[in-house]
Amino acid sequence: MPRYALRIEYNGAPFSGWQRQSEQPSVQGAIEAALARLEPGEHTIAAAGRTDAGVHARGQVCHCDLDREWDPFRLSEALNFHLKPAPVAVVSAALAPHDWHARFSANERHYLYRILSRRAPATMEAGLVWRVNHMLDLSAMREGAAHLVGLHDFTTFRSMSCQAKSPIKTLDELNIVAVETDAGTEFQFRVRARSFLHNQVRSFVGTLERVGSGGWTPQAVGEALAAQDRAACGPVAPPQGLALMAVGYPEDPFV
Amino acid sequence: MPRYALRIEYNGAPFSGWQRQSEQPSVQGAIEAALARLEPGEHTIAAAGRTDAGVHARGQVCHCDLDREWDPFRLSEALNFHLKPAPVAVVSAALAPHDWHARFSANERHYLYRILSRRAPATMEAGLVWRVNHMLDLSAMREGAAHLVGLHDFTTFRSMSCQAKSPIKTLDELNIVAVETDAGTEFQFRVRARSFLHNQVRSFVGTLERVGSGGWTPQAVGEALAAQDRAACGPVAPPQGLALMAVGYPEDPFV
Repeated sequence: MPRYALRIEYNGAPFSGWQRQSEQPSVQGAIEAALARLEPGEHTIAAAGRTDAGVHARGQVCHCDLDREWDPFRLSEALNFHLKPAPVAVVSAALAPHDWHARFSANERHYLYRILSRRAPATMEAGLVWRVNHMLDLSAMREGAAHLVGLHDFTTFRSMSCQAKSPIKTLDELNIVAVETDAGTEFQFRVRARSFLHNQVRSFVGTLERVGSGGWTPQAVGEALAAQDRAACGPVAPPQGLALMAVGYPEDPFV
Repeated sequence: MPRYALRIEYNGAPFSGWQRQSEQPSVQGAIEAALARLEPGEHTIAAAGRTDAGVHARGQVCHCDLDREWDPFRLSEALNFHLKPAPVAVVSAALAPHDWHARFSANERHYLYRILSRRAPATMEAGLVWRVNHMLDLSAMREGAAHLVGLHDFTTFRSMSCQAKSPIKTLDELNIVAVETDAGTEFQFRVRARSFLHNQVRSFVGTLERVGSGGWTPQAVGEALAAQDRAACGPVAPPQGLALMAVGYPEDPFV
């Protein structure tokens, strides 16, 4: 059975998350249903990052095994035809080696979190950003973020339901920029690591937002990290500001 | 009765357009209903541009007359509270002179039309762009657009239901840029004039898209304009790519 790598984009709003669940719409379920229109029967796909309800993706990667040999471009077109009108699209497809795995072969994940800072509720960006109704201090947030980069025990920043064996991870990047957009000032958090704990990015952003608003000092982020205690974490940022942007592999399957 | 100028942002997707209609949700109706929560009774507001169903606004401007003197900032906050959860927000409010009129005092309108060019359907941008599944030739579209700038009889580019007295208008700007975004190549059409005919921007964009795709020559745009005949127009671009970005006045009411 040939294996295919698929790069997937989706708006997470209508889904209970990536993972298939009975009775609830999921991104995995939508793609598996589209695959069943191409080759009848059960399909089970694996993804690099199992995003939560309301979280988006620009560059989720999954793989599937099919009976027939498909031209990758035609496969993506056929899946997009059957995915309509769900806000899920295959943006790239490629034949992959039999032992290649979307999740276990990945060695980097890159997330973007967007905070829109303005008084008025979001309209065109609703569901795509976390709107906060106050200004944020960019340099204070950057100072707080600096405590998080590197190899650490991230127990403080993982959800109680996280199933990872170890809370020790290396955070390669946590970069924050302020961008003036048509909607107002948007703070963009770009976060990159080999892998993440459950709710890690949203725990970072929710904590750093407290720093940006003046509720926490930048140093308090370092103290929270050192506590290795979930209770020391700031609030968890809401899901709709988060998107899985890209997944890295030792060899890019899409070139 | 004091008069207030309101700058309004909205996602046009759930509305039958700006204009109030019985039985159908409209942006005007949503704002008038919010005003009635502040001061009971009938409210009738006037807007600078009566956008069609599905068309968005970043900087629509309207005015309302109220019984009480409102602090403008508190007025915007109170309206936003009552507008929830509709994707309509008051982004600015100001006291205006009694003879100031959101529509008749305006001397400039600025629209943005977004085309996303890529094979995969839009997901996070769905409802905010016109997605076309082929590349567009930017320089050919610019050459075609150059025929439209200036003082012309725009009969070709107005809808049959347009109620403007004259089809003769001055188009001050029709600028097209290609922007690489996370979703793919986006062509942004920025169009500026004192006023527009009904469906004028969408008629321009639909015709220029034909030029960009190679179906029309750039010169054919000039010929269509010269024909002064609605039948000479290209297809009308769909509403969801269009947004009213800003309205200009001899004196900015919001400073």
